[in-house]
Amino acid sequence: MQDFLPGRARKKKYIERVCREAFEKYGFSPLETPIVEELKLLTAKGSGGAAIEDEIYSFKDKSGRELGLRFDLTVPASRVVAANRELKMPFKRYQIGRVYRYDRPQAKRYREFTQADIDIFGSKSVLCEFELIAVTVEIMQKLGLNFYIIINSRGVLENLALACNVPKEKLFDCFRAIDKAGKIGWAGVEKELESAKISLEILPFLKENSLEKAVKKIKEKGFDITGANMLDELLKLLKEQDLERFVRVDLSLARGLEYYTGMVFEVKVESGPSVGGGGRYDRLVELYGGNSIPATGISLGIERVLDSLDKKLELPAESRVLLIPVNKELNREALDLTQKIRSLGVNAEMSLVERGIGKNIEYADKKGIPFIVVLGEREVKEGKFKAKELKSGKETEIAFEDLAKLKELVKG
Amino acid sequence: MQDFLPGRARKKKYIERVCREAFEKYGFSPLETPIVEELKLLTAKGSGGAAIEDEIYSFKDKSGRELGLRFDLTVPASRVVAANRELKMPFKRYQIGRVYRYDRPQAKRYREFTQADIDIFGSKSVLCEFELIAVTVEIMQKLGLNFYIIINSRGVLENLALACNVPKEKLFDCFRAIDKAGKIGWAGVEKELESAKISLEILPFLKENSLEKAVKKIKEKGFDITGANMLDELLKLLKEQDLERFVRVDLSLARGLEYYTGMVFEVKVESGPSVGGGGRYDRLVELYGGNSIPATGISLGIERVLDSLDKKLELPAESRVLLIPVNKELNREALDLTQKIRSLGVNAEMSLVERGIGKNIEYADKKGIPFIVVLGEREVKEGKFKAKELKSGKETEIAFEDLAKLKELVKG
Repeated sequence: MQDFLPGRARKKKYIERVCREAFEKYGFSPLETPIVEELKLLTAKGSGGAAIEDEIYSFKDKSGRELGLRFDLTVPASRVVAANRELKMPFKRYQIGRVYRYDRPQAKRYREFTQADIDIFGSKSVLCEFELIAVTVEIMQKLGLNFYIIINSRGVLENLALACNVPKEKLFDCFRAIDKAGKIGWAGVEKELESAKISLEILPFLKENSLEKAVKKIKEKGFDITGANMLDELLKLLKEQDLERFVRVDLSLARGLEYYTGMVFEVKVESGPSVGGGGRYDRLVELYGGNSIPATGISLGIERVLDSLDKKLELPAESRVLLIPVNKELNREALDLTQKIRSLGVNAEMSLVERGIGKNIEYADKKGIPFIVVLGEREVKEGKFKAKELKSGKETEIAFEDLAKLKELVKG
Repeated sequence: MQDFLPGRARKKKYIERVCREAFEKYGFSPLETPIVEELKLLTAKGSGGAAIEDEIYSFKDKSGRELGLRFDLTVPASRVVAANRELKMPFKRYQIGRVYRYDRPQAKRYREFTQADIDIFGSKSVLCEFELIAVTVEIMQKLGLNFYIIINSRGVLENLALACNVPKEKLFDCFRAIDKAGKIGWAGVEKELESAKISLEILPFLKENSLEKAVKKIKEKGFDITGANMLDELLKLLKEQDLERFVRVDLSLARGLEYYTGMVFEVKVESGPSVGGGGRYDRLVELYGGNSIPATGISLGIERVLDSLDKKLELPAESRVLLIPVNKELNREALDLTQKIRSLGVNAEMSLVERGIGKNIEYADKKGIPFIVVLGEREVKEGKFKAKELKSGKETEIAFEDLAKLKELVKG
């Protein structure tokens, strides 16, 4: 787990704001759930599944109740939908919050991380998948990241696997092996399938990655192709809205979590890591005791996004100006001026320690405050001061009664 | 622990934004720390003290490490300052985040709650206390709450207690008893002091609440009156900035946490609960292995504030308009229009389920979306549609190519 000192915290907050604004533009409403959940909710069969169970932070509270820290925001949201039957459908909600996964010792994996998550409950329409992708594109573009979104249909993958003689009870083992192709290569996947005694017949289809050939095989064996039709429909909508260029179909994308039932997504930074993912999970709300409510969602890992653009993103300090009284006797005048500047809506601070002007300038410079005002006896007497831009060294004279001029000068 | 459904979550987020904007106006920068901390940090002697120790959510992780959920944001911030000696002083940081306290079964106390916390590290100046109060006033006024801030000096209280024959080792017991005056009355405090074998000599001073008389007593016994002088200085600054009217001095305010060393505050809603508090804690950073760095801070309990103004605060839904295609065949046209509206920066959504107009209007109404647009064959053919304001029933005709008119119409 990590601390975010102001430089990075500022960037993290900025990314969160970009997400929130995009979510709200698409009509998602906020939901907040506790970080602590009942352990049995988190480990319910058909929820996260084997991929997540060992990673849950679990503990007992003082009354002996078994609790766990949430590992995602989708499971708690599904619990809320299951428990609140009065919610009007479709229920479009977003949540930006921390989640916990124990022991993933890889680089750039954190045990505590922040997800920005949207989900749509109560609609089977492929319009939902369209929205998830559109809002993700909007966020990634706003952040200036070079990215793409991999999409696949669990339906297609499942029926292709069945058509290729994977027995039903080995589907998840098969998916988990396939999902590792990016990490361990196809030879590695082959080895895993062999050791799990799963037919290799599916591999050529995945390697070739031709939806057409996969559908042909599925049809031949008499399995359902609804998933493929939905994928087609989604691609058509994306094309019409000029979003197809951000998307790549990959028949081998399975996603680790068990709860997915339909389309799945993964968001990747070009030649970089996965920064998010999601998919359709039409049975999770029911699993938690609710009505049968279809659902689909996507989430971004804020720290991953932050790591991808950390060096590119330059954000100024909160304060636009630092006021420096030359001695303690002028504190009141400086405070008065600072309060007046703040009352105009300008972020400002005054020196809170007795020290020389040089030290104060060093502070402003290090913190990234762009302007300083030094306040001495003369400034107070003459009723005017100079605002100095640290970067250019340029000074602007401003009268005490003309603070609007200062506001204009220092605005970001 | 509680879920915040959209109606309340929206208000909670609004309060958090008001806090953040005020914090940034005063030049505070964001800091983020993990929710999980080493247990020994949280239970360190001289930190929270007895008042908090029993309330910490503690557990062991899979490697046997003893951990706990943070009970406030001040302790983690002090750890960060102690560990990062390169931080430029003064270090003004804010953090809005969740904290945990087990088992407080009173009404309006939550086991998980959100604090909006600011702290200033590295300055002994009373200008810091001034800022904490000024920013709190700004927030509470912006929220339209009727409130006051109680202030006291631990220094005054401590020296008054010593002057009134409370032995040094019983000071905290004495403070904890006094702190309950609001809840158990002075008779109750008297009983507690008696059972702890503490002199009652201090009580008349506290009941009368005269700073002047307390100072006289402290001086008589030869103790230090620095605390009283700082209190005077603070009151003077507040008066000059017309903030004195929000402040009441109360010599019996002690605050539960052990780490306070100077001025203490409590924020109260008029005829309502305490919604926040804070104070000076000049020895905490050193306790965590850092340099000797003075510090002072204040925090607001977001849920308490929310409960105080829940009914007064009316916030609209995220979406300004709902687009309703009359049949599935018009989904593409509706999607196209929705995307164009969104690209203008207007929050909008389209119906994601096939259902009648009536059901869609009910949805918009329940969610609080103020405008709807019904899209039929005719609208598409004629290239214009009607935007209807649900509240007034008023319809406005808008051409597809004049969406700026829609933007103007639906803006909040």
